[in-house]
Amino acid sequence: MNHSAIRGILGVVLKFEAAFLMVPCIAALIYGEKQGIWFFAVAVGCFITGWLLARGYRNDREFFSKEGFTIVALSWIVMSVAGALPFTLSGEIPNYIDALFETVSGFTTTGASILLDVEALSHTALLWRSFTHWIGGMGVIVLVLAILPSGGGQSMHLMRAESPGPSVGKLVPRMKDSAKLLYMIYLILTLTQIVILLIAGMPLFDSLCTAFGTAGTGGFGIKNDSFAGYSALIQVITAVFMILFGVNFNAYYFLTTKNNKKQAFRIEEVRWYFAIIAFAVIVITINILSMCTGFWDALNKAFFQVGSIITTTGFATDDFNLWPALSKTILVALMFVGACAGSTGGGIKVSRIVIMLKTVRHEVLKYIHPRSVNSVKLEGKVLDKNVMRGTTAYLLTYCAIFMASIILISIDDFDFTTNFTAVAATFNNIGPGLEVVGPTGTFHYYSWFSKIVLMFDMLAGRLELYPMLVLLNPSIWKGKR
Amino acid sequence: MNHSAIRGILGVVLKFEAAFLMVPCIAALIYGEKQGIWFFAVAVGCFITGWLLARGYRNDREFFSKEGFTIVALSWIVMSVAGALPFTLSGEIPNYIDALFETVSGFTTTGASILLDVEALSHTALLWRSFTHWIGGMGVIVLVLAILPSGGGQSMHLMRAESPGPSVGKLVPRMKDSAKLLYMIYLILTLTQIVILLIAGMPLFDSLCTAFGTAGTGGFGIKNDSFAGYSALIQVITAVFMILFGVNFNAYYFLTTKNNKKQAFRIEEVRWYFAIIAFAVIVITINILSMCTGFWDALNKAFFQVGSIITTTGFATDDFNLWPALSKTILVALMFVGACAGSTGGGIKVSRIVIMLKTVRHEVLKYIHPRSVNSVKLEGKVLDKNVMRGTTAYLLTYCAIFMASIILISIDDFDFTTNFTAVAATFNNIGPGLEVVGPTGTFHYYSWFSKIVLMFDMLAGRLELYPMLVLLNPSIWKGKR
Repeated sequence: MNHSAIRGILGVVLKFEAAFLMVPCIAALIYGEKQGIWFFAVAVGCFITGWLLARGYRNDREFFSKEGFTIVALSWIVMSVAGALPFTLSGEIPNYIDALFETVSGFTTTGASILLDVEALSHTALLWRSFTHWIGGMGVIVLVLAILPSGGGQSMHLMRAESPGPSVGKLVPRMKDSAKLLYMIYLILTLTQIVILLIAGMPLFDSLCTAFGTAGTGGFGIKNDSFAGYSALIQVITAVFMILFGVNFNAYYFLTTKNNKKQAFRIEEVRWYFAIIAFAVIVITINILSMCTGFWDALNKAFFQVGSIITTTGFATDDFNLWPALSKTILVALMFVGACAGSTGGGIKVSRIVIMLKTVRHEVLKYIHPRSVNSVKLEGKVLDKNVMRGTTAYLLTYCAIFMASIILISIDDFDFTTNFTAVAATFNNIGPGLEVVGPTGTFHYYSWFSKIVLMFDMLAGRLELYPMLVLLNPSIWKGKR
Repeated sequence: MNHSAIRGILGVVLKFEAAFLMVPCIAALIYGEKQGIWFFAVAVGCFITGWLLARGYRNDREFFSKEGFTIVALSWIVMSVAGALPFTLSGEIPNYIDALFETVSGFTTTGASILLDVEALSHTALLWRSFTHWIGGMGVIVLVLAILPSGGGQSMHLMRAESPGPSVGKLVPRMKDSAKLLYMIYLILTLTQIVILLIAGMPLFDSLCTAFGTAGTGGFGIKNDSFAGYSALIQVITAVFMILFGVNFNAYYFLTTKNNKKQAFRIEEVRWYFAIIAFAVIVITINILSMCTGFWDALNKAFFQVGSIITTTGFATDDFNLWPALSKTILVALMFVGACAGSTGGGIKVSRIVIMLKTVRHEVLKYIHPRSVNSVKLEGKVLDKNVMRGTTAYLLTYCAIFMASIILISIDDFDFTTNFTAVAATFNNIGPGLEVVGPTGTFHYYSWFSKIVLMFDMLAGRLELYPMLVLLNPSIWKGKR
């Protein structure tokens, strides 16, 4: 293990976190909230620790996927551990495990909350909560890669460990330029949403928090009723942006190029993504029609909730816990599907689901025509064997972690639906589940043990499983390679 | 498509069914139940139809896996369609869809029932219900292979389509001899159980039905309280036999040989199977201790229910619906694990779960040591790439059917736990689930549409998915290859 690289990059990440913490500090100054002092103190602490760790680190040594995975997993844990401190120090979330859960939920863009009354928090804390979504959406390591001078072939290993989806979205040959481009698209989309929300009449503070939560597909609300209290216009705008942030960012990259604009509309994954959304919205609209004030009300509610769940954001305009079983089950299915690879969304990802369904079809056809050599194709190209193997291994690992998590948290004796959807909602980085953890519910009542299991799931889900599993492997900690 | 082979074998299967129907007819004579006349009438009908279909069929033409799969899927459907007739004709299950559900549930060794009062049935009907488990456990096609003269390479295709597990249990070089050996072991174990149950004081009729349900890992009870009313001794005997019928039959074959006796205890899958059972029994015993009258009561209940669920039998001595969440969740997990490959049990099969977990471990290790070439091993041998690919394709197909089924039956608007476990209990050929379909519940209240979906799941689960999917493929019905 390259310990110096691990220490060095963790140091850099902590210095970045110090900078991020300035955002809530500014809010504290504006609103004159004295909780801000704790955010500032933690920022100073992060900076000093980061400076000590990164001192003497030069970004030139080679390292391998093992180090890449370890660095990324540790970075996210360290960021969360530090980011949770102000909540507890300021007394807003007195229990540190709860504060850590809330912060992990923020950075992993889950949006699952242990709070019983979110409106009791200060503006400072609310903004930090939402801002963690924005940081986590694109990933802090990607930001580090975009800004710091890069050396050697390590960027690839880091980016691969943090990027969502079966293959790394290498937009342009140099990884550093890809990272910059991604952040640029991310920033522009976020700013656009803020401006449109302001025009639609949303207050500035709400617009900022909403845009951060939407961009990162996070879903922390700043109201106890999440999004139900906002106007229909604001709800529609937010739903549209949720869906936009769930699109493979390659599509936006193609739109910025001169010659490849049309390719943006040809990405197979994106087409499937929109087809699934359309299908789910139609079925749910019909299914909930009798509960709503009319067709448009039903359509608006179906559109918002489908957009929120498939992109793994988790805002809600209606308590879908009360919907008919068909609509609830479709939402649960969408939790697993998730957004596109290369977006800020979580879940299994549309492309993996498509690969999975095509593999099934291929297998059936093989029994019917054993001699014909069909291959599984995506985007018109035959899928590489390694991508296929990686995808199936991913899905198997996913099922194994899922089952283990449900058994572990069932010790708390909640009902099966609650446990099942609690794991589905955290592992896929969504937020709300059904029953106790439904849109109007909370994760508050789980024991500290279950909260740790669910934190692991959130991190494993955000980091595509393997970094967290690599971290659990004892051989990592033996010092030798 | 080789239509003459399909017609011919379906004819033979119907003639076998006519013979099977003599068993309830004998019961009708003994108990003087006039419902027996309908069973006899259907038997005559089966024989005539079978004779017409099989007339002129000579068992000599070659055919391929496509035909093998189609024949097996159609055989099971035809057997069920005919086997359900006496229930409706005699008026004991007036609704034919219900009768079909009950018969499919019988042949697929599921044991899920639509009955509200099982004790209202005649002895004739009860015996037929339990006997379908026994027929379905080992499979009627295997029986056909064991008895009829075989021609060409078709046996392999048929046996592969009907045998449970990732690879065909070819005990001895000739398929016909393997089939005979399997039935011999099956018969001896069943007779042993009947004798021991009689000694333990169970009435003959109950012993027969219990042994048929145990041997096929089916689970139809003949009492409204399933197994709760029998003595602890009878419960323990049944639990032990359930577990024995869930063992890979290769182990019993090894025990009959002179030189390979020790190998029986070395089969890796069987060791995992017993380890999982032991672990589950210990955890559940501790978990339900406070609800029971003492340690032995808790142990007895845990042992019976674990044995019943992992082997996918489905008898119950306690309403596990009322157990704590941890115990219920472990039982749900066991529903998916299922018994050993090459046994009469259903589910995903222990060997596939082991291959899955080893694949996950292998994948994690590859990230840590990218250069080392580890392979996934089972029984000490490196796993063949085709077995690996087949296993992962199976698991993906499994997940796809599972998710689609839950969405389809959720139209009926039962709660998520009911729907989830209804699919788990039918697709894995277990029987009872949780909530509405719990051990004291029934599948009665589902709509005819959901019942058809669940019948498909039972057949797909019993036939290892692909025969039913091949049947759904339109190209099968076009007449050309």
